[in-house]
Formats: sequence, C-alpha cells, structure tokens
Amino acid sequence: MGRITERLAELGIVLPPPKPPVANYLPCKRSGDLLFVSAKVSDLHGAVGADVTLEQARTAARELCLLLLSIVQSEITDLDRIESIDKLRGFVRSAPDFTRQPLVLDAASDVLVEIFDERGRHARTATGTSQLPFGAAVQIDMVIRLRPDHPIE
Amino acid sequence: MGRITERLAELGIVLPPPKPPVANYLPCKRSGDLLFVSAKVSDLHGAVGADVTLEQARTAARELCLLLLSIVQSEITDLDRIESIDKLRGFVRSAPDFTRQPLVLDAASDVLVEIFDERGRHARTATGTSQLPFGAAVQIDMVIRLRPDHPIE
Amino acid sequence: MGRITERLAELGIVLPPPKPPVANYLPCKRSGDLLFVSAKVSDLHGAVGADVTLEQARTAARELCLLLLSIVQSEITDLDRIESIDKLRGFVRSAPDFTRQPLVLDAASDVLVEIFDERGRHARTATGTSQLPFGAAVQIDMVIRLRPDHPIE
Repeated sequence: MGRITERLAELGIVLPPPKPPVANYLPCKRSGDLLFVSAKVSDLHGAVGADVTLEQARTAARELCLLLLSIVQSEITDLDRIESIDKLRGFVRSAPDFTRQPLVLDAASDVLVEIFDERGRHARTATGTSQLPFGAAVQIDMVIRLRPDHPIE
Repeated sequence: MGRITERLAELGIVLPPPKPPVANYLPCKRSGDLLFVSAKVSDLHGAVGADVTLEQARTAARELCLLLLSIVQSEITDLDRIESIDKLRGFVRSAPDFTRQPLVLDAASDVLVEIFDERGRHARTATGTSQLPFGAAVQIDMVIRLRPDHPIE
Repeated sequence: MGRITERLAELGIVLPPPKPPVANYLPCKRSGDLLFVSAKVSDLHGAVGADVTLEQARTAARELCLLLLSIVQSEITDLDRIESIDKLRGFVRSAPDFTRQPLVLDAASDVLVEIFDERGRHARTATGTSQLPFGAAVQIDMVIRLRPDHPIE
C-alpha cells in the first residue's frame, strides 16, 4: 500500500469516483514532469453569499479537491508519484458583495496539506466570478509535479 | 511542406494573419520547452446568452483558437515544432444565467484535436466572467510544449 | 550589489515589504526551474470604472507588481536569480461597462520591463471579473523561470 493511500486511510478520507470530462479535452495532461489537471466544478450550485453559504462552499471546495485527486489517481495510478502540488487556481461564483474567496479555497488547500504534508503546500490564486459552468459555486484546477523516476507507462 | 501545414490544407483551414499584442507584452513567451501563449479575445463582442448566441460564441471560439495558432506559427515558424497542446484556458463573457461555457470552448478544443490529433488533446478550464477586454465574448490563452529537438533560433 | 538591485536603485524603485499569504498556501512554489507566484490583490478596493478610476487602478497594478517582486525576493534572496518573467495573469474588478483591463495591467507589465529589460517581457492574460478577495480592484499572479545555476538552498 502506498504512503499516500495509507495517509488517506489514517485521515478517514475516501476519494470519490473520478468523473470523465464533459467535453473534448483530457482530465489531465502530462507535459514533461508537469501534470496539468483540468478544472472541475462543484456539485454545489449557486452564488456564494446569496444562494449558498460560506460553509457550504467550503465543504464543496474540499470535496472538489478530493475529486481532482481521484481523477489524478486514475491517471497516474499511484498518488505517491506526486512530487508536489505546485499551483491551485480556484474561482468562486460570488454574490456581488462576497469577498471571502480565499476562505472558500482554504478548505481545498487544507486538505491537500493534510494528505501530502509539505509536498501539498502550493501557490494559489482565488478569484471571484459572476458565473461558472452549470451554475456551480466553485471551480478548481491544478498544476502538479510528478517524480521523474516514476514515468507514466 | 510540414505535416501540420498539410493537415490544415486537408481540413481546408486557412490560418488568419497574426495580430500583435495591444500592449507591452509578448504574443508568446518561450520558457525551456514550454511556450506560454498570451490571451487574445474574440472579434465577437457582447455577453453570451444575452447579446450573442451560443452558436455565435462557438464560431468565435474556433476562430480565436486559429488566431492563436497563427500567432504561435509566426513565433516558431513551423507548427510541427509543437510537441503537444498542454493547457487551454478560456473565459466566456456570460449573461447572468448563461452556464454553458464548456460548450463554447468545445469549439476551440475540437479544432485543436482536428489539426493536431492526439498531440492536440489538452487539459482545459472554462470559466464564466462578467466582462472582458474590449467587451469581447471569448478570451483564450494556452500553454504549449515544444519538441526539444527544435530549438527556436 | 546585484544587477537588479542596482537597476532598482537607478529607477528609484524601493520594493515594499513582502506580505505573508492570508491562508494555508505558499507565497511562491518552486517546481524545477519554474517559480509559481501566488496571487496578491491590490490595497486599492472597488470596481474600476465605477468606484475607482483607470489611473488609480494602474497605480495599484504597478504597486502590486512590486509587492510580488518583493515576495519573490524574500523567497529567492537575489532577484538576479530570475532567468525570465514568463507569464503574468491579472484580473481587474470591472464595472459592467469597463473593458480596458489591458490598460490597467500595462502598468504592471511596464514596470517588469523597466526593471528586467528583455528578461521581463512576458506572456500575459488580462481578464475582467465582478469580484475579488477583500473587494480589491486588481489581482495578479505570475510564473517565473529561475536560472538553473542558482539553486535555492
């Protein structure tokens, strides 16, 4: 059992099943040692601060982050192949006066650090927006670095 | 004649003339084997779902993608130097209730796969927004990987 | 004294003190020779074209860019370690009819070229949005390439 699989079990985290892209693009694209992870949106719909609460959005951001990891796992088989989480970019569909996008994304950042420890600490951008695909509340994409000694077959 | 030039001819695609950046930045920045392609916006103006239709936005997204390829070509001379399209990021200026941003960007993703086949399959993020430069309907940028054996002079 | 430190002095530019991230992420993440710089937002609050003027936003964008450089400096010690500024991504909180986001970001692009000359010329994306963290007017993040002969300890 891999180190990260073990860590997930310790934390009581069960990754959700991966979801296929809704269109003609890849869930992840390997480029050298970088892995560009396509954005997914939360199942939670609505504008944060109007239709849904900060707490609901935080829960959605955490779940969304786990969905991204599940997608990455199905791509690279073993999450131990991750050298580091480099960049997380998140968009929060925001009511006109909602300005706490960083608090929403913290729930995603936190779970990455819980699981990957130092390797999970990343650069981040949290941006508000007026609308997202399917009316979702949160959208996240990532850039990950893979270990060079673990090529994808 | 290069393989991609041949493929463009087969598809009956004529790349538009490249456009210079409107300000003090580069159309493309080479960094190692990566090529960061600056965003361009569509000639089509307006909010999708209000001022312009989904179909108009799809046509604009496809044309915009070809414009980006034209800009890349004028930078690297030969599109055969592209190892892979790694990441496409698109913003769609959206009416308050327009949530089909992925359908707009599909038109860009599709033409990349038509032209580059497997090498054209990319990671993607499609985001809605309230406003874009010049009031454009669509904005796209890309990250491309170049073949290491084809350095830019 | 480093070349860039000298250049800053020539230009009469004093970098502001760096600011720590407001949450559980890194100010910069090194990944191979790339440095992903987390987004910061301007001290200037409000929507450009409504609450604040274009000129105010331009001043804020320039100051924000210097803040990012200060953060990078505190991470890599010496700005001479920068091989090139690869990508600048900026979001401008925009009044419904404000479409001159590129003019705002030009102030950031210009100062990078003033300081780093050719190495400071970058790919760019300037996007409008309805809301940003803390109600800020401008948000910027960057990707930088470091010289391979100057590893971070």
